[in-house]
Amino acid sequence: MERLVVIGGDAAGMSAASQARRRRPADELQIAAFERGRYTSYSACGIPYFVGGVVKSLDDLIARAPEEFRDRQSIEARTRHEVTDIDLDKRAIEVIDLESGTVRRESFDQLMLATGATPVRPRLPGSDAEGIFGVQVLDDGRAIFEALDASEAKNAVVVGGGYIGLEMAEALKMRGLDVTVVELAAQPMSTLDPDMGALVAGAMTEMGIEILTDEAVESFETAKGHVSAVVTQVRTLPADIVVLGLGVRPNVELARKAGLTIGPSGGIAVDRRMRASADGVWAAGDCAEKYHRVARKHVTVALGTHANKEGRVAGINIGGGYATFPGVLGTAVSKVCATEMGRTGLKELEAAEAGFESLSVTVDSTTRAGYYPGTSAIKTKLIVEKRSGKLLGAQIVGREGAAKRIDVLATALWNEMTVDELLNIDLSYAPPFSPVWDAVLIAARKAWQAVEEDLSDCS
Amino acid sequence: MERLVVIGGDAAGMSAASQARRRRPADELQIAAFERGRYTSYSACGIPYFVGGVVKSLDDLIARAPEEFRDRQSIEARTRHEVTDIDLDKRAIEVIDLESGTVRRESFDQLMLATGATPVRPRLPGSDAEGIFGVQVLDDGRAIFEALDASEAKNAVVVGGGYIGLEMAEALKMRGLDVTVVELAAQPMSTLDPDMGALVAGAMTEMGIEILTDEAVESFETAKGHVSAVVTQVRTLPADIVVLGLGVRPNVELARKAGLTIGPSGGIAVDRRMRASADGVWAAGDCAEKYHRVARKHVTVALGTHANKEGRVAGINIGGGYATFPGVLGTAVSKVCATEMGRTGLKELEAAEAGFESLSVTVDSTTRAGYYPGTSAIKTKLIVEKRSGKLLGAQIVGREGAAKRIDVLATALWNEMTVDELLNIDLSYAPPFSPVWDAVLIAARKAWQAVEEDLSDCS
Repeated sequence: MERLVVIGGDAAGMSAASQARRRRPADELQIAAFERGRYTSYSACGIPYFVGGVVKSLDDLIARAPEEFRDRQSIEARTRHEVTDIDLDKRAIEVIDLESGTVRRESFDQLMLATGATPVRPRLPGSDAEGIFGVQVLDDGRAIFEALDASEAKNAVVVGGGYIGLEMAEALKMRGLDVTVVELAAQPMSTLDPDMGALVAGAMTEMGIEILTDEAVESFETAKGHVSAVVTQVRTLPADIVVLGLGVRPNVELARKAGLTIGPSGGIAVDRRMRASADGVWAAGDCAEKYHRVARKHVTVALGTHANKEGRVAGINIGGGYATFPGVLGTAVSKVCATEMGRTGLKELEAAEAGFESLSVTVDSTTRAGYYPGTSAIKTKLIVEKRSGKLLGAQIVGREGAAKRIDVLATALWNEMTVDELLNIDLSYAPPFSPVWDAVLIAARKAWQAVEEDLSDCS
Repeated sequence: MERLVVIGGDAAGMSAASQARRRRPADELQIAAFERGRYTSYSACGIPYFVGGVVKSLDDLIARAPEEFRDRQSIEARTRHEVTDIDLDKRAIEVIDLESGTVRRESFDQLMLATGATPVRPRLPGSDAEGIFGVQVLDDGRAIFEALDASEAKNAVVVGGGYIGLEMAEALKMRGLDVTVVELAAQPMSTLDPDMGALVAGAMTEMGIEILTDEAVESFETAKGHVSAVVTQVRTLPADIVVLGLGVRPNVELARKAGLTIGPSGGIAVDRRMRASADGVWAAGDCAEKYHRVARKHVTVALGTHANKEGRVAGINIGGGYATFPGVLGTAVSKVCATEMGRTGLKELEAAEAGFESLSVTVDSTTRAGYYPGTSAIKTKLIVEKRSGKLLGAQIVGREGAAKRIDVLATALWNEMTVDELLNIDLSYAPPFSPVWDAVLIAARKAWQAVEEDLSDCS
């Protein structure tokens, strides 16, 4: 009997296990998954909403418990089991039961690496103090929630103004804390161009969240082992709780130690079928590299939606089928309070880094016909290759109903459309849903005009 | 000096005029537009919302008044002027001033036909009675509104259950009338497949609108010239007001009389640059044929968004530029009460008529993560070509935030994607915006599985 061992019991690992099982029954393929945390198949993206009280129970974030995998699919999912070593020659792993401390070896024929990523923790004085939290696994969410419940925390500092940073800042604000975001760059939300990011920063400020930019954290002050303040090069901020939003790093140490190739982006190198660099070894999710279809290079992106898709692809292949993962566009969406933001493809700086000569246009429009009640602002920015007019990236900032429209632009980008093609596309129109020229189409029109003007300037 | 005459002062005509003007100044091209109605550039699609009281003033539906065209763009737009004849040899039209009754001839070098469409009025006894309204131009909206205001109308009958029929039924219900929709077919909303249309019919019934299907109107009873009842083959429905929602017919009589080619779909035949069959004659909007990119034939579709795009293309070409209109997909969106519906491409029956062997899948999902507050149901149906897995059409029925997602599927369809390609596309994900597998992706997955199963059944 063949044996599949899965390291990591969240989206990528359990998707792979499920798909493999669908194609190969339990009397043909044994499947064991090891997860060092307490949970399998959960939504880490939901943590800020749990902390903020929008989602009432942490259990709501769990898609499937270990028992469900066992009972429904004969997949053995063991939580609180940490894999500490992979021996590719002997086809075995070493795993420690974190509850009992016992160590044992488990053999495999196929190995699925779904080790995820870990929040970046700055190596600064005091950074290991209690009250400083990363946000990655459900236990992080529980820990933050319990810390808030137990203490009379008043001041929160969020270090880093990316998606998790801003979502956690909003959550903490909703819990009644005074919240300050400290951002090293000139602006938070740096996956957007500065002009679009500024709109998000403005929305946060309006909520009463203080945003400090161009400011580096230098150390954490502690009292009795617990954080008491965040020290930047400019000032000392009192802090009862600190949340790190500095991004995550792929967990690749196990893979590296085992001799698997780590790509230049820092993730485990995989091909389109999610095969790592050794026979019968697969990787997917936050720990694995992804091909960026517009930048034309490999990147790491920690996002549940990729993890699910890649896990599915790996599982189909492990199960004897054929599937490929065609890469990512860097699409993302988020919201703070009533302000929504979406992005796909390359921002201006990324387009330049990727060697494209680009131009940008920004268009203000509305989500419904201007005269229809409930219409709200939507600002759409397109980044377009000069001469060809090919779409390179897009960003949307707006109110309710705005951000998810980024998917139209992601689909256009996926198909390598030019803005000239895009401006005539047959998108839906009715007054409750868009103006007669949808915001996407207006932006494409304006972008095409800019491309033509740029061409005639050159001639 | 060259002269452009535009027949019809709404979306297609005035877009063409504006675009032509942008490329050719007033001392080079004279532009005169004749509109038989009272208004230029208005949103006919907004009429149901005005009647229902959602939009407060009819003026809100007017994008630009004649004076604005004159003052800003030196475009002479004359309302209440009806063109009665086109003489292509002598390059002149005959136009009657509907206020004064004076008739005169106006010469042209270029002629733009934007004559629109007229609601279908059944030739039945009593069908010319007062109180029976089509819904096409702003004056129709005003007439209905005034009729409701002036009378103590209690019973309304809507004949035909398409978009306008259902939108008007809702509007009349919101005004407090008892509303009955009479539909000849087995179900209203026949642009959707029966299973999806049934959901819309159910939502209407829940609102208290009565829907009679498989029922033909045979005559209208009148009292003192005013409608008093609608007689079907089954019953007599008392009616103080009747709204016709039987679709529209392109206004092509002028064009036909002038000897221009009318296409098999009943619209004026045009090429991709919007040129009609005579030199220097252009047509766009509801009166002109459009190429349906999936059905691969010419069709007529009365929709402001096409009129605007086609008018723009014609105007660029008239102005000496180069632009083409690449066709339509049959995308549409609407809502009744809180139920939204969107569609694109071919429904099952249309796919069969177009010669495709297709299969369909339907998926129930949610607009946000299942655990996120405000998540709502979204049902997505895909119609897919057997063997190739090529997307042929899509339909969505759901609640707030559901229908506009049809645009992602329209963009995929525009690019002739297969569901196999579609299921891995990088759409945006965050809990407030979608489950980790977006509804579109789940539907694509299920459709691809159905294609594969169908293939293995064949082998």
